Amino acid sequence: MIDKLIKEIIEKKNPTVVGLDTRLEYIPEDLIKKHGSKYASFEGAAQAILEFNKKIIDTVYEYVPGIKVQIAYYEMYGIPGIEVFTETCAYAKKKDLIVIGDIKRNDIGSTAKAYASAYLGETDLIYARKKAFDLDFVTVNPYLGIDGIQPFIDECRQYDKGIFILVKTSNPSSSDFQDLYVGEEKLYEIVADKVSLWGEELIGDQGYSSIGAVVGATHPREAELLRKNMPHTYFLVPGYGAQGGNADDICGCFDEKGLGSIINASRSIICAYKQERWRKQFNPNQFAEAALAEVLAMRDDINGTLNRHGKRYW
Amino acid sequence: MIDKLIKEIIEKKNPTVVGLDTRLEYIPEDLIKKHGSKYASFEGAAQAILEFNKKIIDTVYEYVPGIKVQIAYYEMYGIPGIEVFTETCAYAKKKDLIVIGDIKRNDIGSTAKAYASAYLGETDLIYARKKAFDLDFVTVNPYLGIDGIQPFIDECRQYDKGIFILVKTSNPSSSDFQDLYVGEEKLYEIVADKVSLWGEELIGDQGYSSIGAVVGATHPREAELLRKNMPHTYFLVPGYGAQGGNADDICGCFDEKGLGSIINASRSIICAYKQERWRKQFNPNQFAEAALAEVLAMRDDINGTLNRHGKRYW
Repeated sequence: MIDKLIKEIIEKKNPTVVGLDTRLEYIPEDLIKKHGSKYASFEGAAQAILEFNKKIIDTVYEYVPGIKVQIAYYEMYGIPGIEVFTETCAYAKKKDLIVIGDIKRNDIGSTAKAYASAYLGETDLIYARKKAFDLDFVTVNPYLGIDGIQPFIDECRQYDKGIFILVKTSNPSSSDFQDLYVGEEKLYEIVADKVSLWGEELIGDQGYSSIGAVVGATHPREAELLRKNMPHTYFLVPGYGAQGGNADDICGCFDEKGLGSIINASRSIICAYKQERWRKQFNPNQFAEAALAEVLAMRDDINGTLNRHGKRYW
Repeated sequence: MIDKLIKEIIEKKNPTVVGLDTRLEYIPEDLIKKHGSKYASFEGAAQAILEFNKKIIDTVYEYVPGIKVQIAYYEMYGIPGIEVFTETCAYAKKKDLIVIGDIKRNDIGSTAKAYASAYLGETDLIYARKKAFDLDFVTVNPYLGIDGIQPFIDECRQYDKGIFILVKTSNPSSSDFQDLYVGEEKLYEIVADKVSLWGEELIGDQGYSSIGAVVGATHPREAELLRKNMPHTYFLVPGYGAQGGNADDICGCFDEKGLGSIINASRSIICAYKQERWRKQFNPNQFAEAALAEVLAMRDDINGTLNRHGKRYW
């Protein structure tokens, strides 16, 4: 699956994904009102979110290799929310977008197997096997060690999927545990070493493994070092935009060919219509056009910075 | 919420919960066939699981303070599975059981807030606030530090709920990262110190906090030390039964009054009818009666061991 992601990145000349972390508060009033008869219900909220997501996907799909969907923002709207998570992912796949499910699942082996079956593989129904969610990539938390990771790796091999394992997260308190020194190295560096090792068996044609790492855009120096120490590990980099990371911050996440990272931005794109930068040009009902403008600006910002540093892939 | 859990434990003289990690393979053939017309579909599987769960709940509810429901085993059956997760939890609550959702969620602050709203609090629908899943306790992964925990603590305070944060998990590879030495202490001990600290603001009438810890039954020495070092932290202890932990192993998880831990067993109870020990007495259609027999045997095993060690609460 990593080869497919890289192919799409190169074809679209864009190493970024759109984070569809859609909350009701992000949706323009007219669209909310349209679903107003069912409003103040999970069903109404979910339908407004689905229409919002579809419009964004319709507008941006030719310009980005994929989307990242944060499942928390769907679970918070109950079953209707999770239905819309599924529909959003299916809709994006129909447009040939790669779908990264940001689910951060983790558990002991037998339970991790259930999660891996649910999101990457198939569920055994005794007389049949069926796909429950069928994403392309998911994020996974490493705290339980290899037992909790191996079932995901197995599904990646069997179903041509990928995972990104949390290494150094973008939030301020990532330092609480991830930065603790274990001997000479910090914990996240030890996790990084393991992620590299676990990924060795699934390295694709481009030299990168389908077992990737999450490395926050808010830690530029750490990311640059990790890039050098993890030559076969693709990075999913959250934190660009609303969380404060900029193109210079993430430049170190890329290799010399401009590959090695896929950058995610969520709020800065889906709420672009609210930004000072775009609100004069687009009214709230043009939220999708504003999102595209931000997508292109982000792409050009990152590619420009990569070019200045002599990192390009086309 | 911790006071309510302790009250139920004392009233029912039972410091254990039933883990409803129900997979289709665990369900007797006749019950599967009953839902056979829709079989080999997620809907059919989910209905068989719901009926199985309800029968177990009906049979055991007077003897246990609560249930633990592992959401992975419901997500693997897609949306119908998650519907049955919700129905199982609601059904248990109607029987006055405390419901622990084993969801191991974790993310950066804003996203952790979404999870906390979804499972413990309420979701903001702008003109209304509604509960999406409404569990009593959930499990949470600490790898992202306090940013990812605080939103759960806030919901615990506001809605009288509780959480159990992963400290030392029951699986073999918990040693991969949790046992790494950070100076003189292992990582899980550092996490334990933080969990104690984070829980200080929510200590109830019995001296225990609604911010608890997950400590596996498979690490008896570590658990005994943690019990001493975390006097205000209640433990959720998985790993009894099928994972290999026995009553002697978990005795150290309890304080001198026989409180301080709630023990979970899943497969050993819900698949009791398959056990050598019970299969002569119960046929597969008596799975709920076999489960009750195992629940009572487990209760007596643990209470007997606690009594022998002079730890009793009645």
